[in-house]
Amino acid sequence: MEFAFDTTTEELRKRLAEFMDECVYPAEEAFERQAGESGWGTPPMMEDLKDEARKRGLWNLFLPGEHGAGLTNLQYAPLAEIMGRSPRIAPTATNCAAPDTGNMEVLSMFGDEWQRKTWLEPLLNGEIRSAFAMTEPDVASSDATNIATSIVRDGGEYVINGRKWFASGAMNPRCAIFIVMGKTSQEGSTHRQQSMVLVPRDTPGLTVKRGMHVFGYSDADHGGHAELLFEDVRVPVDNLIGEEGGGFGIAQARLGPGRIHHCMRLIGMAERAIELMCTRALARTTFGKPVAQQGVVQDWIAESRVKVEQLRLLVLKTAWLMDTVGNRGAHAEIQAIKIATPRDVEWILDKAIQVHGAGGVSQDFPLAGLWAGARTLRLADGPDEVHKRSLAYRELKKHMPPN
Amino acid sequence: MEFAFDTTTEELRKRLAEFMDECVYPAEEAFERQAGESGWGTPPMMEDLKDEARKRGLWNLFLPGEHGAGLTNLQYAPLAEIMGRSPRIAPTATNCAAPDTGNMEVLSMFGDEWQRKTWLEPLLNGEIRSAFAMTEPDVASSDATNIATSIVRDGGEYVINGRKWFASGAMNPRCAIFIVMGKTSQEGSTHRQQSMVLVPRDTPGLTVKRGMHVFGYSDADHGGHAELLFEDVRVPVDNLIGEEGGGFGIAQARLGPGRIHHCMRLIGMAERAIELMCTRALARTTFGKPVAQQGVVQDWIAESRVKVEQLRLLVLKTAWLMDTVGNRGAHAEIQAIKIATPRDVEWILDKAIQVHGAGGVSQDFPLAGLWAGARTLRLADGPDEVHKRSLAYRELKKHMPPN
Amino acid sequence: MEFAFDTTTEELRKRLAEFMDECVYPAEEAFERQAGESGWGTPPMMEDLKDEARKRGLWNLFLPGEHGAGLTNLQYAPLAEIMGRSPRIAPTATNCAAPDTGNMEVLSMFGDEWQRKTWLEPLLNGEIRSAFAMTEPDVASSDATNIATSIVRDGGEYVINGRKWFASGAMNPRCAIFIVMGKTSQEGSTHRQQSMVLVPRDTPGLTVKRGMHVFGYSDADHGGHAELLFEDVRVPVDNLIGEEGGGFGIAQARLGPGRIHHCMRLIGMAERAIELMCTRALARTTFGKPVAQQGVVQDWIAESRVKVEQLRLLVLKTAWLMDTVGNRGAHAEIQAIKIATPRDVEWILDKAIQVHGAGGVSQDFPLAGLWAGARTLRLADGPDEVHKRSLAYRELKKHMPPN
Amino acid sequence: MEFAFDTTTEELRKRLAEFMDECVYPAEEAFERQAGESGWGTPPMMEDLKDEARKRGLWNLFLPGEHGAGLTNLQYAPLAEIMGRSPRIAPTATNCAAPDTGNMEVLSMFGDEWQRKTWLEPLLNGEIRSAFAMTEPDVASSDATNIATSIVRDGGEYVINGRKWFASGAMNPRCAIFIVMGKTSQEGSTHRQQSMVLVPRDTPGLTVKRGMHVFGYSDADHGGHAELLFEDVRVPVDNLIGEEGGGFGIAQARLGPGRIHHCMRLIGMAERAIELMCTRALARTTFGKPVAQQGVVQDWIAESRVKVEQLRLLVLKTAWLMDTVGNRGAHAEIQAIKIATPRDVEWILDKAIQVHGAGGVSQDFPLAGLWAGARTLRLADGPDEVHKRSLAYRELKKHMPPN
Repeated sequence: MEFAFDTTTEELRKRLAEFMDECVYPAEEAFERQAGESGWGTPPMMEDLKDEARKRGLWNLFLPGEHGAGLTNLQYAPLAEIMGRSPRIAPTATNCAAPDTGNMEVLSMFGDEWQRKTWLEPLLNGEIRSAFAMTEPDVASSDATNIATSIVRDGGEYVINGRKWFASGAMNPRCAIFIVMGKTSQEGSTHRQQSMVLVPRDTPGLTVKRGMHVFGYSDADHGGHAELLFEDVRVPVDNLIGEEGGGFGIAQARLGPGRIHHCMRLIGMAERAIELMCTRALARTTFGKPVAQQGVVQDWIAESRVKVEQLRLLVLKTAWLMDTVGNRGAHAEIQAIKIATPRDVEWILDKAIQVHGAGGVSQDFPLAGLWAGARTLRLADGPDEVHKRSLAYRELKKHMPPN
Repeated sequence: MEFAFDTTTEELRKRLAEFMDECVYPAEEAFERQAGESGWGTPPMMEDLKDEARKRGLWNLFLPGEHGAGLTNLQYAPLAEIMGRSPRIAPTATNCAAPDTGNMEVLSMFGDEWQRKTWLEPLLNGEIRSAFAMTEPDVASSDATNIATSIVRDGGEYVINGRKWFASGAMNPRCAIFIVMGKTSQEGSTHRQQSMVLVPRDTPGLTVKRGMHVFGYSDADHGGHAELLFEDVRVPVDNLIGEEGGGFGIAQARLGPGRIHHCMRLIGMAERAIELMCTRALARTTFGKPVAQQGVVQDWIAESRVKVEQLRLLVLKTAWLMDTVGNRGAHAEIQAIKIATPRDVEWILDKAIQVHGAGGVSQDFPLAGLWAGARTLRLADGPDEVHKRSLAYRELKKHMPPN
Repeated sequence: MEFAFDTTTEELRKRLAEFMDECVYPAEEAFERQAGESGWGTPPMMEDLKDEARKRGLWNLFLPGEHGAGLTNLQYAPLAEIMGRSPRIAPTATNCAAPDTGNMEVLSMFGDEWQRKTWLEPLLNGEIRSAFAMTEPDVASSDATNIATSIVRDGGEYVINGRKWFASGAMNPRCAIFIVMGKTSQEGSTHRQQSMVLVPRDTPGLTVKRGMHVFGYSDADHGGHAELLFEDVRVPVDNLIGEEGGGFGIAQARLGPGRIHHCMRLIGMAERAIELMCTRALARTTFGKPVAQQGVVQDWIAESRVKVEQLRLLVLKTAWLMDTVGNRGAHAEIQAIKIATPRDVEWILDKAIQVHGAGGVSQDFPLAGLWAGARTLRLADGPDEVHKRSLAYRELKKHMPPN
Repeated sequence: MEFAFDTTTEELRKRLAEFMDECVYPAEEAFERQAGESGWGTPPMMEDLKDEARKRGLWNLFLPGEHGAGLTNLQYAPLAEIMGRSPRIAPTATNCAAPDTGNMEVLSMFGDEWQRKTWLEPLLNGEIRSAFAMTEPDVASSDATNIATSIVRDGGEYVINGRKWFASGAMNPRCAIFIVMGKTSQEGSTHRQQSMVLVPRDTPGLTVKRGMHVFGYSDADHGGHAELLFEDVRVPVDNLIGEEGGGFGIAQARLGPGRIHHCMRLIGMAERAIELMCTRALARTTFGKPVAQQGVVQDWIAESRVKVEQLRLLVLKTAWLMDTVGNRGAHAEIQAIKIATPRDVEWILDKAIQVHGAGGVSQDFPLAGLWAGARTLRLADGPDEVHKRSLAYRELKKHMPPN
């Protein structure tokens, strides 16, 4: 057992931290201004940041294997944390932003050569963006077997009908390709009825209806969270990813890394929040002393530190497990971090907001926006309750008397 | 001791509930649509609702004494709760919306005849709106003695310089008058240096700079939360409310009822949230049974009920104390409800959101918006921590050994 | 609506407070010493305290109707609170101690003349004590239908077999009579199979096996919590309380007032804890200032006050409901206070302990003992989870679509 | 970074687990019986267990360096966790029980040859036991500078006067030596006024007054928690440990490993609690289904797992830091685990108790006793609040603007 990072990781952390200091943090204010004027598009300054990141060798760090930077999860984790400190800029600038990351993983693992050439390549180059359409407004999607969108084979085509929402990124006009999960069969094992197909943005019958808000935020700079309507949308059978009935399995494979990336970034957000909380508490005075000397505020700061240290270690261990025993072997730990991280980071952000007074809930600090993101992650990729239920079953099974 | 409402209250509750059922709830969807198209103005349908409410004798219910409906706090409390069930419509429709309510109270109690004629009357008639400018971006305003805006007498005028923010309602073009708190003196007792003056919207030197957001919401339909810049703003000395050095006292007098009104409405929001939570839980199915049969969801519902019952009683008792021993005599209880209510209602809203899945954080349900309001009330009118500190001193004093 | 106590209540509160100040608090230290030397018996000084209380008209205050003091629940509630401030002495001294109170209520309501003459009378006079045997070690007794002790009619006798535990008070040699719940039938409605019978202490076949501990405490001064073994215990059929199959109903009738009495006393314990917490915080110094000036301690004190005020009001309203619409009509509120009070008072006691440092967990302060009592009440008379489940069903039912 | 244990650790974990399975768990029931009959002494069966442990090479595992097993903290941590699963037997059986462990560390690091020969040797052999007397009843000992016991040099002797309490283990008649912290000077730096001296049990003037309870437990099998009176107690100056004024430093050095050992064992207790919780939940039925299928219980089980995984990693990392950068370098992490572990394990134990119903608070399960231990650790070795205050200062310092 050994808690120090390896040299590759340390070198990349240093390089990434320099990029943050030199390019990202200084750009934040202007980015927000541009974002306010860019509608659903990415603020234009992002292209320069992408060029710069790529030049510095900070590109596609998330992706293991030959298509990406080839890092392990354990090596990527602390880098994702650093990106999470400026989550509206750094992940996109380094082409490590969800949902593209998950979609690239899917194409990299399950896509055929044509699919990789057509969609993975431009994604890897940061030329297009992509969306993942799984959640549906009409059913409780936390139980994935509820998903109702139909994908029916008709000759050489699949015909898709259904309604999706919270397809993050899809409002962005550069979002060129959607991975859509639906049912290709109503029969057989409940986990073998789903398939995934690739649907290009301009396919007839597909309507991008509106952007869903999260707590008042449209997340427009990130392409929002779209509601999509599929009415007799036809795609060639070549657009099937993997095999028919494999959708649930691909979703599982996709969600594992996706969840850990979210958690890594959340830890970076928490560190940023602690910084802001301390800085503000030192700068303001109430009742004759700096806010930093109020016992309750000190309590929050200490608790935040204690929480972050625990979260980080569990996320790192989970990454290590994914690397050593595989995503399936790390399933319980992935669930554990998915439960613990958004909740605890939400708590830290709440306290940082409170220290900032009215400013904390406003657009003048990033805290309220980060909070909305953390809160939403208690629902996204499966609500906490579903993960806890599953963790409990696993725990109970260990103690079941043999039949 | 007796826990039933009196007949006046029961009659008004019935009448108000009918108004809600017949006019308010059915209007909610259209109101949101209009709100989206009205910029910083009030959605036009509001005028009809106001007429209807006034016709039904549901007008200015918040205001005791001759200028208003003449109800006691205890009689008004359950009515405010009902209004809180549709907080974006009902309070405004009945002319019981903050910050006008507090401003009308101030003018009613401390305004001279001219001030009442000029500003109170149109406010009572719902013809104009008003704002209250106290919080400042540059100091920790939770300690009111930090307030830095200067109000300097110069002959027959006061000259105002400073920066305010979170002046709720001030973005609305119909918001005609601002009550501004500032320092008329740098000397003497720290609680006698402040004064309040009336500043009409069109006064030269006053810039309404921008609307502050709360968790991404602009609250535009309610006139937003403005940042205001005062640069050598001049008003006649007649615009002073009460006496020089009386500002802190007026603020205290204003905040007592203001805080209890907020709490009453929050309880109504909580009831609405419980309704929505139950309805959704009954309507959706996961893992083979209705969400309503999930033990954890049941736990949330029960906890919500237990919390709401306790909050309501403490708010009602506080109202009774204000009526019987005065706002000052009810000070500790006002602080207690100000601490307990936003926090507990925030908790209930959070759980209702979780039951709604992704929909819960979106614009399709009122929950996320209500949540942002409840959360912000943990800061507005004094953050929890300030109230708790004061409550603790009071408690400790009881047990201090005599000198 | 009116939050002041009536004159009867105020007069009794004053009289009881005097008794506490003059007789109870001054006796606490000696009582603990005597308790340490009295084995399972009541410390001898208790008899004097009982005489004194009776002389002062502070006797059987809990019992409505002709057999007791004739107070309403609403009148008794604030008196029970005062008793709860010294819970090891005051309730017994005034003959208002569980489980005798509940047993007297049962005999008063359901007992026949002979039963009342033989058992109720000496109980009302404080000459004997009694126990209630319901919980069983071998089944999850939180679901009362699980109860397995059998009561089988055999001619003019009932034959009882089974095992009970946590029969509070039964270790006391003066505990002369046990009310035993068991199954007289294995058929029919699951809530009509139980009956209650009176079993005198010296009945052959009944073994008082041992005292169960709660968190290390034997509660010996109060007669402990006995494990009882029933092996072919025979009692005459006249010992049946009420009718065969009526046991569940009697249990329900008994538990309503029992639960509210516990909650009332818990509130008194909480007030005592706040007193101790403040006094200690004012008396000790750390890091250069009194503990009372530590922000976190102030936060605890304020939170404690906020919690207690809310709990008291909900308990009082529940008492009022029991008086006005009956125990059944107050069912939801009884469950609500049963959930909220032990939990919140446990929290307050925990904080008071923390302020006392190591002393807080020791026998030198009453806090750890009170804590153990409060904690145990999260289980006794039905664990929180059972009450919450039931409350949730009630809430959900309101929103179920009509069939 | 690497999360697998090294082979030494794995081998010892296996050997220790076998000892637990073969000798410790099977002895628990008899141990409790003997403990009930052994007064303040250790149950006699402990000697056999010690022999067995020693024979198996499971002896003094806690002690690094030549005097002990020579393990690193990181190697010892998972072993202490396993011992914590049966905390009343395993630590003593392996001569790894507090406070002897800390005292042996002190003697090993700071004792001179005579002191090591006289006291360390028999302690290492498990022939005697020892106590550590620091906390005082008359001052808030959480601020160690408050300590008032005086140690005054008089010729070749030190004269000790003062009162101590919670000297764990000291009620045991085999406890032969006390390490006593007191003030040798009233002047100079507040952290250089304290010294530590060795006081043999039979020294005139030393009275072992009584055992303090924790939540009703005397912890007699472990030697209790004594109150000690020092009245002109004289010891030779050779009994000084280290140098005059070095007491605070030794205390700090002692508490670091002490705190981590406590945390390691607590994690073992938590694992035991989860086991018991699952087993019980599977075995009992309420309302028609196993308790294990109640959603709320599943939630507790999952939360427990999530908490334990995080705690363990932070404790292990802290151990690694102590090994690599020293106790001082690991100071913040030691504080973090001292805050997080007792609190979270207390939570888990509380839930395990709740699942056990009334049995959970009783002597029939180890849970209530373990709970009392965990709760007390929120106070022992410095209350949480002191550690949090210190952690907050450290965090704030990072963000202080340079002068």
